[in-house]
Amino acid sequence: MNRSNRSWLLERDGTIPLYRQIEQQLRQRISNGEWPVGTRLPSQRKLAEQLGVNRSTITQALDELASWGMVEGNKGGGTRVVNNTWNRLAAATIDWDSYVESGAHQPNLPAIRQINEAEYDSSIIRTGTGEPGPDLLPTEHVRRILADTSDEPFLGYEEPKGSLRLREQIVQYAARQGISCSPESILIVSGALQALQLIAVGLLQRPSCIVAEKPSYIQSVRVFQSAGIGVHAVQMDEHGIQINHLQQQITEHQPGLLYTIPTFHNPTGTILSSERRAELLELSSSLSLPLIEDDVYRELWLDEEPPPPLKSQDRQGNILYVGSLSKMMSPGIRVGWIIAPVPVIDRLADIKMQTDYGSSGLSQYVAARWLADGHQEQHQTWVRQQLRTRRARLLAALEQYFGDIAQWNAPAGGFYIWLSLPTNVNVHRLFTLALREQILIHPGYMYDWQASHHIRLSYSYADMKQLEQSIYRLRQLVKQCMNT
Amino acid sequence: MNRSNRSWLLERDGTIPLYRQIEQQLRQRISNGEWPVGTRLPSQRKLAEQLGVNRSTITQALDELASWGMVEGNKGGGTRVVNNTWNRLAAATIDWDSYVESGAHQPNLPAIRQINEAEYDSSIIRTGTGEPGPDLLPTEHVRRILADTSDEPFLGYEEPKGSLRLREQIVQYAARQGISCSPESILIVSGALQALQLIAVGLLQRPSCIVAEKPSYIQSVRVFQSAGIGVHAVQMDEHGIQINHLQQQITEHQPGLLYTIPTFHNPTGTILSSERRAELLELSSSLSLPLIEDDVYRELWLDEEPPPPLKSQDRQGNILYVGSLSKMMSPGIRVGWIIAPVPVIDRLADIKMQTDYGSSGLSQYVAARWLADGHQEQHQTWVRQQLRTRRARLLAALEQYFGDIAQWNAPAGGFYIWLSLPTNVNVHRLFTLALREQILIHPGYMYDWQASHHIRLSYSYADMKQLEQSIYRLRQLVKQCMNT
Ligand SMILES: Cc1ncc(COP(=O)(O)O)c(C=O)c1O
Ligand SMILES: Cc1ncc(COP(=O)(O)O)c(C=O)c1O
Repeated sequence: MNRSNRSWLLERDGTIPLYRQIEQQLRQRISNGEWPVGTRLPSQRKLAEQLGVNRSTITQALDELASWGMVEGNKGGGTRVVNNTWNRLAAATIDWDSYVESGAHQPNLPAIRQINEAEYDSSIIRTGTGEPGPDLLPTEHVRRILADTSDEPFLGYEEPKGSLRLREQIVQYAARQGISCSPESILIVSGALQALQLIAVGLLQRPSCIVAEKPSYIQSVRVFQSAGIGVHAVQMDEHGIQINHLQQQITEHQPGLLYTIPTFHNPTGTILSSERRAELLELSSSLSLPLIEDDVYRELWLDEEPPPPLKSQDRQGNILYVGSLSKMMSPGIRVGWIIAPVPVIDRLADIKMQTDYGSSGLSQYVAARWLADGHQEQHQTWVRQQLRTRRARLLAALEQYFGDIAQWNAPAGGFYIWLSLPTNVNVHRLFTLALREQILIHPGYMYDWQASHHIRLSYSYADMKQLEQSIYRLRQLVKQCMNT
Repeated sequence: MNRSNRSWLLERDGTIPLYRQIEQQLRQRISNGEWPVGTRLPSQRKLAEQLGVNRSTITQALDELASWGMVEGNKGGGTRVVNNTWNRLAAATIDWDSYVESGAHQPNLPAIRQINEAEYDSSIIRTGTGEPGPDLLPTEHVRRILADTSDEPFLGYEEPKGSLRLREQIVQYAARQGISCSPESILIVSGALQALQLIAVGLLQRPSCIVAEKPSYIQSVRVFQSAGIGVHAVQMDEHGIQINHLQQQITEHQPGLLYTIPTFHNPTGTILSSERRAELLELSSSLSLPLIEDDVYRELWLDEEPPPPLKSQDRQGNILYVGSLSKMMSPGIRVGWIIAPVPVIDRLADIKMQTDYGSSGLSQYVAARWLADGHQEQHQTWVRQQLRTRRARLLAALEQYFGDIAQWNAPAGGFYIWLSLPTNVNVHRLFTLALREQILIHPGYMYDWQASHHIRLSYSYADMKQLEQSIYRLRQLVKQCMNT
């Protein structure tokens, strides 16, 4: 089930008892230095889960290792490596924990780490995952592209700003959305997330801060924080970011820029209205406030085309526009782009070269072919159709099971429904209970620490039958988590 | 010639004069906000070069723009955008220069930026480029892999540590080099450079420092410096890093780790001797000093297999081992790996997820297939053969043209020859003069600011005939640059 147990090669019906096999493999990891002296082992429960064995088998294996003096239990029930056969009397070992804890970059939120891990257990039902499910990916199309690669080399390094061929395609793609630009003002990145990362380390001074919607896409906020940049929240309503509150926050905090997701906002699904768009542009212009327009969901409109990007109205070069192929073509291909004034692009390209020498040339090659062949259009039409059906089914399930206890929006595009549960629901407890039943939810506090009774649902990933069943089950768990 | 002029669509034999076409396109870029008010335009010389027109044509176009009040020349001969049609009286414009200058990440050295740019002019002869030339890449092999991709999906996100299938292949690959590890202690990265970047932000506190060989791979040193970490240099001789000096530097600076390239060192080609390897491991162990072993050139031995990796002797988990497919299979595929204790890998995987959500799944898929099918071995044998011939030719050319004025090493593997010119040669001047003749050299001061009379040559990239001719020509230029 859990793919990671492929790391452990256990013979279930071999002659050597399981606990011995486990002991042997643990010992090997310890004497290899993969688990150096001082390392805390995963909990017995977790090991048992990972290896797909009973917890008592793990206990037996660890007891053996303890009798060799290699590990030691501590009061908290944890186990630590205390010796390895190679340096029984090792004078000094590196205290990796202290290294791990002292790096400048912040660790992910525990909830996100738990989610990242749980996602690779294929038996889990992912009710909030923000990516197209495997059945929505254009695998066959891309196979056909790959089957004929005779037109251009694809194994060498690309230019600092990314493959020119791909940037030319993006010029045309952007033009269809009303944005005019040339290849020099485009930087290819490894997904929109990297765009934000580059902006955070490349354009903002320390100390400084930015403003962003509340709630917002959690990873982006995190990227800025890890770069040592403060993030101040701006309130939203059903028309998007509130301009008054934005103005207040600007006056109070003097932010370096605004990060915004104006179209099919993550996690609320909101579209910034045309009036607000005009006001926002006006504000940006009059206060010289740069905007990051994160527009990765634009193509996922389901009812009607959303208003054009802010960037299409930007004649002054105030907007850093971010796009991506993740939500419509492939999240794993890691191709995104920034469209911005040339001096900004030059700077960000320089940093990108210093940190990873550019994005995968193979990915860029496939992306360029994908856009050039016009596959995108055809695929989009089909995906929209699929998503409309899924949206309807999820909304119907919510109506049926949550109609009496919760509120939500009916999104006009994107993947998300932002579900507001009764205020006395402990969402953290809900998360834990659901996970025990193989249902993975995205707690609202990931997107806004004050959103204590929200969850983000997505109709893009899970199998619809399973999603409907999960909604049914979640209702019961919600009832359980209401502290009445 | 220069591919970037594809950004400018000039009709050379159209009815509209060239200067008008250029004026129009410049104006468009300015009114789009690609070159916002305040932007310094590229120099006239550079624009002329980029567009492949006479400088007088550029001057004429800029004069036109100036008469519209859109640009203004300044005393230094530069040109700035001062207005655009959309906000003639624009109260405020964003001062992007101040953003570009205030980001935390350091800009690349000017020489490196110049090199990065020059490399995309296909008429330039690249005498120092550290990557396999297009004719050494296994394009046909990879085409065959891509032609049949029916075995596994490849468009979704991968696990935080990278594709398990690829990590399993790397377990086997590492085993052939004497390193035993399991998939949990491997992190897939977008090239070795990213490995260093993640270590810099993930494991080292601020302020702190590291030690590294002198000279060293410049980008790695840069990555640490940009993360706010000091780098202290340790002397090398023909057997590799000097253990005495290392000890001194450790005592004096208390570094967080040592970054070393023990096998086919960049740029000197040196192999750390077996005795030194033993001493280094002993030192690391007794002082609890972690090492980064950057081993990207290992497979490129030409005479005999080098000593096994330090990592193969590391039972304590003191070594962070870094490998890559860049030098042997494809620099553009951006696949590298770190092998290290599990707690370290967990930490670095977490940061990688936060910054780019993992490396291209498509690249990882192809890399895994490449390693699994055993293509690697066959290709390596062939590449070694090619490189032996090239090395012999470059050494012969040096003997012929530099025998009387320079010293160099005869490398037993890797790509590089470290050429030591007479001390009175001004290498910066040499760089400029050579570039005028379309010959791109890598000045030694990129690798060690004190290496003022060195250059790094490579026999991996350039066409051999052109390389030989360049050596001939360089001799004459060197003579010119000797301040006699
Ligand atoms: C608003 C927003 N921006 C960026 C991203 C990241 O996209 P990519 O996969 O291109 O890095 C996401 C993905 O969840 C997102 O929701
Ligand atoms: C010593 C060394 N390490 C790392 C790298 C970067 O390799 P990659 O392309 O895998 O990032 C290079 C490339 O020049 C190198 O010389």
